[in-house]
Amino acid sequence: MQDRDHGLAARAAALDAADPIAHARSRFDLPPGIIYLDGNSLGALPACVPDAVAEVVRQQWGTDLIASWNSHDWWDAPLRAGNAVGRLIGAAPGQVAVGDSTSVNLFKCYVAAARMRPGRQVVLSDPGVFSTDQYVLEGAARLAGLQIVHAGPDDMPAVLAERGHEVALVSVSQVDYRTGELWDLPALTRAAHEVGALCLWDLCHSAGVVEVGLDEHEADLAVGCGYKYLNGGPGAPAFIYVPLRHQAAFDSPLTGWHGHARPFGMESGYRAATGIARTRVGTPPLLSLLALESALTAYEGLDLAQVRRKSLSLTGFFLDCVRELVPDVVVATPVEDARRGSQVALRHEHAFGVVQALIARGVIGDFRERDIVRMGFAPLYLSHEDTLAAALHLRDVLDAGEHLAERFASRATVT
Amino acid sequence: MQDRDHGLAARAAALDAADPIAHARSRFDLPPGIIYLDGNSLGALPACVPDAVAEVVRQQWGTDLIASWNSHDWWDAPLRAGNAVGRLIGAAPGQVAVGDSTSVNLFKCYVAAARMRPGRQVVLSDPGVFSTDQYVLEGAARLAGLQIVHAGPDDMPAVLAERGHEVALVSVSQVDYRTGELWDLPALTRAAHEVGALCLWDLCHSAGVVEVGLDEHEADLAVGCGYKYLNGGPGAPAFIYVPLRHQAAFDSPLTGWHGHARPFGMESGYRAATGIARTRVGTPPLLSLLALESALTAYEGLDLAQVRRKSLSLTGFFLDCVRELVPDVVVATPVEDARRGSQVALRHEHAFGVVQALIARGVIGDFRERDIVRMGFAPLYLSHEDTLAAALHLRDVLDAGEHLAERFASRATVT
Repeated sequence: MQDRDHGLAARAAALDAADPIAHARSRFDLPPGIIYLDGNSLGALPACVPDAVAEVVRQQWGTDLIASWNSHDWWDAPLRAGNAVGRLIGAAPGQVAVGDSTSVNLFKCYVAAARMRPGRQVVLSDPGVFSTDQYVLEGAARLAGLQIVHAGPDDMPAVLAERGHEVALVSVSQVDYRTGELWDLPALTRAAHEVGALCLWDLCHSAGVVEVGLDEHEADLAVGCGYKYLNGGPGAPAFIYVPLRHQAAFDSPLTGWHGHARPFGMESGYRAATGIARTRVGTPPLLSLLALESALTAYEGLDLAQVRRKSLSLTGFFLDCVRELVPDVVVATPVEDARRGSQVALRHEHAFGVVQALIARGVIGDFRERDIVRMGFAPLYLSHEDTLAAALHLRDVLDAGEHLAERFASRATVT
Repeated sequence: MQDRDHGLAARAAALDAADPIAHARSRFDLPPGIIYLDGNSLGALPACVPDAVAEVVRQQWGTDLIASWNSHDWWDAPLRAGNAVGRLIGAAPGQVAVGDSTSVNLFKCYVAAARMRPGRQVVLSDPGVFSTDQYVLEGAARLAGLQIVHAGPDDMPAVLAERGHEVALVSVSQVDYRTGELWDLPALTRAAHEVGALCLWDLCHSAGVVEVGLDEHEADLAVGCGYKYLNGGPGAPAFIYVPLRHQAAFDSPLTGWHGHARPFGMESGYRAATGIARTRVGTPPLLSLLALESALTAYEGLDLAQVRRKSLSLTGFFLDCVRELVPDVVVATPVEDARRGSQVALRHEHAFGVVQALIARGVIGDFRERDIVRMGFAPLYLSHEDTLAAALHLRDVLDAGEHLAERFASRATVT
């Protein structure tokens, strides 16, 4: 390998030797023989989770039964897990709740934001954002009488300058799910605030890998999912952030009993709970929620600044590997650190085949319409050695034309 | 005991000996030494679930990772589990989906029902229904421009006769969560249909214990939770039923990507999927969902008619026990079989203390505001012997005044 790797193996070894969070890998159970670059779609299994879930099932549910609502404090689990997520995204306690899906949490935010800015009808939304953000906004806009105006994050300041007085909300993802571009949401939030608008941050692809700093940057609302870099397991419940200063005005359209001021009072009318609890709706899926709570302990003792540095080191090194090993491949992800999340996206005419051929070699990334090979770098369990190995496999796939195999001609597979 | 039990022990033994579904008890892991009468709040743990969940965590998530969306068919799990629930509530395949909470599913139904009956603003709702049904309706009514009219199920036909032309939807629970009264929803649905209104059935307290017969009785919409008699575990996802004849018109307000016709097509606009899939929203909590799917196998080979007969036998026998052993206690549940769900509710001035004193003796029921001692009889894992034992404990609690203990004076405990 030495003669063909341009010294990359030595660099990988040196970077790994100097990695201050390399020990975090032992907190995960990864199957042998694969390089998992899909932690941005489904995070790997933290080693503590199987026992934690078994205890919830056998002891809390099976033995303690209904008493667990008190004895194991199931009732407060959404807020407890919310505080744990908050520590990773720069939110002080009492401002994040875990529950429902990202889509449902987006719905709450869109309608509540409209109510926080009466008289303003416009929601400014990135047309490149993940589909569910757009679809849910469509549904919310129809009910709440909102008008959707599309603009990419780069163009939003100009729209705000022109018609900011109409804008109730700016809705944007911190990291583009396809290209991995990291947008400057602090600046965009300031621009929104200058014209009296709110700014909603979708953290699905940044929570756990970027120093988000919600409180510091005065984000108005945020949502994100629990199953990507937070490693909460398939379909782990999502989170919602409403800062203290907005909680009294946050008027959720989903007025379920868990969000009531006195859930067991059986009052005849809805009265929203004080604080972040008012974002709650129905009984949360506790097996999934408590799995997420356990999974979050994989971040214990890690500083998000360290995690971010490791993430940039991995993606930066992968970009170097691509440049050296497969120089013809088009990179869709910005090369500047400040503009890159924790993934690298490559554009390829046969992107689906490339992804499938890599999977056949044990390198798990994913394909996104139309031509994106997407590789996520989860800093807690990946090394620079893994990163180089993935790049070498990519070179070998392309060199051998493995991506052109007949069986990859159909894109019917869900990934 | 013989001299004080009025021959009840002999009756219990005879009824248990003749019980055709007594063997189902072996399908559950119940802790020794307790009599669990709270399966209407949190169903007991089916014996198959711990291994099923462990397999999902270790193999599907931990080892197979993202590929499980295909290889373990995670994508179709909400519809697969939906069909399994459908078999228990009289819904042919393709009409039930599992996901979200009951509250969120109610929201979808309220708004979609209003859209299916344009020009009609009234939702007729039982003020005695569980609080979340009322609260969510408040929220939906505000967004969709609906007017809520309250009437008990007995009074609804009169309201329908008078102002039926204004009524879009009749919303009602099949079994009253406090008294255990079983309402005649088939008749109410016919009355709604006569005036062109729809009827939404809340099955939280009937699914799995009553022969619901949604298709047979032409219910228009239904929801229910997975964690009571369906034994899906704490906060198990809920279900939603939309019959084939209404699916094309079901226009959900929660337009998440899982309900899209082409979820991975990343189309710019929302297009609802064909069929029941259009009720889906975001990624479902798979650990909780697959636990429910496993739990539903506890019903394998059981006929709902048998389950219902056993349920009536248990609650009927308990009513006899109460009459013989504690004749002064007021029974809130109808004694006629046709009007009784699967629980018995007693009214008592010191209901909270009675429930706590019973729990101290290992008889787990629950308290509901203001004065209800609620005892649920899950026919799959309870016997007539358990039933008698619970009644004897109740007599002993009341005889000894255990319910008046100082420590039960506060009702702060969540149950």
